[in-house]
Amino acid sequence: MAYNLLKGKKGIIFGALDENSIAWKTAQHCFAEGAEIVLTNAPIALRMGTINKLAEEINAPVIPADVTVAADIENLFTQSMEHFGGKVDFVLHSIGMSINVRKGIPYFDNNYDFTHKGFDISALSLHRVLATAMKLDAINEWGSVVALTYIAAQRVFPDYNDMADNKAVLESIARNFGYFYGTKKKVRINTVSQSPTRTTAGSGVKGFDGFINYAEKMSPLGNANADQCADYVVTLFSDLTKMVTMQNLFHDGGFSYTGVTAEVIAQMEK
Amino acid sequence: MAYNLLKGKKGIIFGALDENSIAWKTAQHCFAEGAEIVLTNAPIALRMGTINKLAEEINAPVIPADVTVAADIENLFTQSMEHFGGKVDFVLHSIGMSINVRKGIPYFDNNYDFTHKGFDISALSLHRVLATAMKLDAINEWGSVVALTYIAAQRVFPDYNDMADNKAVLESIARNFGYFYGTKKKVRINTVSQSPTRTTAGSGVKGFDGFINYAEKMSPLGNANADQCADYVVTLFSDLTKMVTMQNLFHDGGFSYTGVTAEVIAQMEK
Amino acid sequence: MAYNLLKGKKGIIFGALDENSIAWKTAQHCFAEGAEIVLTNAPIALRMGTINKLAEEINAPVIPADVTVAADIENLFTQSMEHFGGKVDFVLHSIGMSINVRKGIPYFDNNYDFTHKGFDISALSLHRVLATAMKLDAINEWGSVVALTYIAAQRVFPDYNDMADNKAVLESIARNFGYFYGTKKKVRINTVSQSPTRTTAGSGVKGFDGFINYAEKMSPLGNANADQCADYVVTLFSDLTKMVTMQNLFHDGGFSYTGVTAEVIAQMEK
Amino acid sequence: MAYNLLKGKKGIIFGALDENSIAWKTAQHCFAEGAEIVLTNAPIALRMGTINKLAEEINAPVIPADVTVAADIENLFTQSMEHFGGKVDFVLHSIGMSINVRKGIPYFDNNYDFTHKGFDISALSLHRVLATAMKLDAINEWGSVVALTYIAAQRVFPDYNDMADNKAVLESIARNFGYFYGTKKKVRINTVSQSPTRTTAGSGVKGFDGFINYAEKMSPLGNANADQCADYVVTLFSDLTKMVTMQNLFHDGGFSYTGVTAEVIAQMEK
Repeated sequence: MAYNLLKGKKGIIFGALDENSIAWKTAQHCFAEGAEIVLTNAPIALRMGTINKLAEEINAPVIPADVTVAADIENLFTQSMEHFGGKVDFVLHSIGMSINVRKGIPYFDNNYDFTHKGFDISALSLHRVLATAMKLDAINEWGSVVALTYIAAQRVFPDYNDMADNKAVLESIARNFGYFYGTKKKVRINTVSQSPTRTTAGSGVKGFDGFINYAEKMSPLGNANADQCADYVVTLFSDLTKMVTMQNLFHDGGFSYTGVTAEVIAQMEK
Repeated sequence: MAYNLLKGKKGIIFGALDENSIAWKTAQHCFAEGAEIVLTNAPIALRMGTINKLAEEINAPVIPADVTVAADIENLFTQSMEHFGGKVDFVLHSIGMSINVRKGIPYFDNNYDFTHKGFDISALSLHRVLATAMKLDAINEWGSVVALTYIAAQRVFPDYNDMADNKAVLESIARNFGYFYGTKKKVRINTVSQSPTRTTAGSGVKGFDGFINYAEKMSPLGNANADQCADYVVTLFSDLTKMVTMQNLFHDGGFSYTGVTAEVIAQMEK
Repeated sequence: MAYNLLKGKKGIIFGALDENSIAWKTAQHCFAEGAEIVLTNAPIALRMGTINKLAEEINAPVIPADVTVAADIENLFTQSMEHFGGKVDFVLHSIGMSINVRKGIPYFDNNYDFTHKGFDISALSLHRVLATAMKLDAINEWGSVVALTYIAAQRVFPDYNDMADNKAVLESIARNFGYFYGTKKKVRINTVSQSPTRTTAGSGVKGFDGFINYAEKMSPLGNANADQCADYVVTLFSDLTKMVTMQNLFHDGGFSYTGVTAEVIAQMEK
Repeated sequence: MAYNLLKGKKGIIFGALDENSIAWKTAQHCFAEGAEIVLTNAPIALRMGTINKLAEEINAPVIPADVTVAADIENLFTQSMEHFGGKVDFVLHSIGMSINVRKGIPYFDNNYDFTHKGFDISALSLHRVLATAMKLDAINEWGSVVALTYIAAQRVFPDYNDMADNKAVLESIARNFGYFYGTKKKVRINTVSQSPTRTTAGSGVKGFDGFINYAEKMSPLGNANADQCADYVVTLFSDLTKMVTMQNLFHDGGFSYTGVTAEVIAQMEK
């Protein structure tokens, strides 16, 4: 069901790799709610994934951009504004990558070149996107930016490795830039802290299956899925949430405020 | 503008005193989004306020209920279900009262009879509403309950007095009941922590003017008003936020995550 | 080993029931660190427990006081100051009781008379102690007050029942009174959020064994015990922590910031 | 007054630039409490500061180490263990540097080469120190590591610039490494979030004076000073706090939980 919640709005969606991606679902839901979309991803992700299928479905151009390269981000905004014939109303940042995770290097043994690279891609990329947008004045007043994050920024999940640190700084960037962009242009910036989700990226994390089951048992409503996340992000892009900014918003079936459940206790007694 | 976000939904709104009330605005916005409403308030508030004007406008029955009396709450749900011809989808709890505040008794000198009374009305009332609803099975699966709160539950605002403690326990009740109602019936329960708002109730707090100006200067987007709060609550009653539960959600223009602003620093240097 | 950390200091310890009590251990450690102590508890607890053994050991008078009766608290402070020949330097509040828990009434079915009684004993008692002390000017400047709490104030532990709400308001009272007593007399007030501990009181909670094992597996350093808690409280009573106030301090082997552990994941896969 | 709280303990102190440094005071207080110390700082800081004066006073060797160079950290631990004739019991990390701050580049315009450099020195340095210590097994069981941080990691203080992000990731590293080092060797790791302090480093931040006055007025006990911070860190290095780990501990006179004060409201009304 659609409500025209985003009618007339224009947005850029980062990170739609394939149909399991939260970004993919978000693009679809935004489109269904009346928005026009520009899709973007890193050149290598564009080759690996199936984004053209989505692009056709929602009638969106795909503009490649490496989030570690300022010129790419600048080009992305410039071309998007040309395509839209005006400024952007919303941006979804769904980007994360850790070479330490990929290579199975434990946290206490991290390679710092990999750490810097992961920091640049996963966290600093949000700063780069926002700084570029501000410089180009590319986002309309009362525009909305959402970045996806995970509760490992608040509590330790050992296998999440240095992505925990990346998410902590990502949330800090959202908060800090939220102050400056809010004061200057009324742009709001929030992070959504989503349940563990079976995306192609998420599945790469070691011990993911054991963990996703634990999270399911620890969430009074169960884990939130990618479609539900897309719905929630739609509300944050809409005009109904204009005064929500600088927040980290848990979308997780209650996991974040549950200390233990009857189900987990039962499992512990086995 | 309306989106039919709540089309076919039925809800009970507590606490619409007059047209400055957040509950009043929320009732209007829910109605505009397609919901059917039952209005309720304490008998004395019904006499003092102008609720009948609203009742006519949104075609809603008014069912008096003293939230400290179990039989009243039971009657409210029973009559509401009769009126709706079915269960309820959402509930707004916008109730707060402190005799210590009203009488200007400073926090460190509180009268404990007044404290107990305020606790019963402002906080335990949410427990009573939820326990009654659960017992009568009066809320549909995936229903949504929102209670209004204030950041004094997290940090000290001296003039907020014992309402700070009441809000702390209100948020705790939302969390704890959210676990039980979520596990059992997928009902979600959240609190919305709103900017200081010039309602008839809010204005009673000592030093309110100085404080609301401070909050305005400390919020990158400014203070959120009652209409914006109503918009936000509508999203929480909608089907787009099904997996958000047991959260305390700040709706405050960024106040909660702002340590200081350039404006406040400037004022300090005067 | 003792350091004379509390040499010359005088303090009141609430809640030493028997030798398993955290308050009992704290009294012993404070005495070992050079403090003079007054012990107090409710008349009924004095009859049930073995406090006279402790009183002899640390050479402390026992002054009965029902924390729900203002006159008792006033008498306690007056007599303590007489005994000490001066004001008090520290106070430990280790008091909690829920009739709903004792009677095994589930949270969603709580009896509100019991809730009010538990609120009065477990939370409002801290306010009463502090208000009385302030009125009598019974605490020295830079004095220190600690109340024991539990993480159920932040996250849901279903069997903790309405004690979760009591602890939430207890922490709020510590914070709010901390502002007023700090501004006026430099008295600091904090809560210590301790691991689940096998005290006589703690053991009464349903499912306590399963839960304490879970907490042990979820704490990188294991659960903190009563002796370790007493050590920690000693530091908070000492002159080395003068600027720590209005805080909730976790003393829990890391439980509070651990999302999951390898051990728990392993158990979930059984 | 000294208590021999750290008698027989051996520790490494990073970051004592001159007698205004918190690290300097901490070294003095640890020495007064019976500890043996190794001092370390970056070669350039050693030249700029007056560390030799301190080294003589507390009879401590100075071992230069650039925290961005693994070999330097390794050498530091190896030499320290040689000097002590055994492992280390505690470490103070008091290191922070932002070129963006120094050059007065506003947050939204940050140079990312500078950001990476600041991240490496201010945050990743803690990871490097801990990883090296773990690899060399250089810290005794139940050892204690403290890193100094600031509340800008939680809320926005605009002039704090990218140091806010650095502190957010520093706290995340303390948490994550606290899990691994705690599980493996019972080593505890915490951050202390200190009031703004007039150190040589702190004074470099733009608008520091206006800000420190604001913090003073917003703290019920006033701002904590460097000596008081040193006292507090001593308790965290002692055996009395063995079960405190993975925490961020505010040492700030109550600033962190104060929403507003009467003094600030009065100033706002001017």
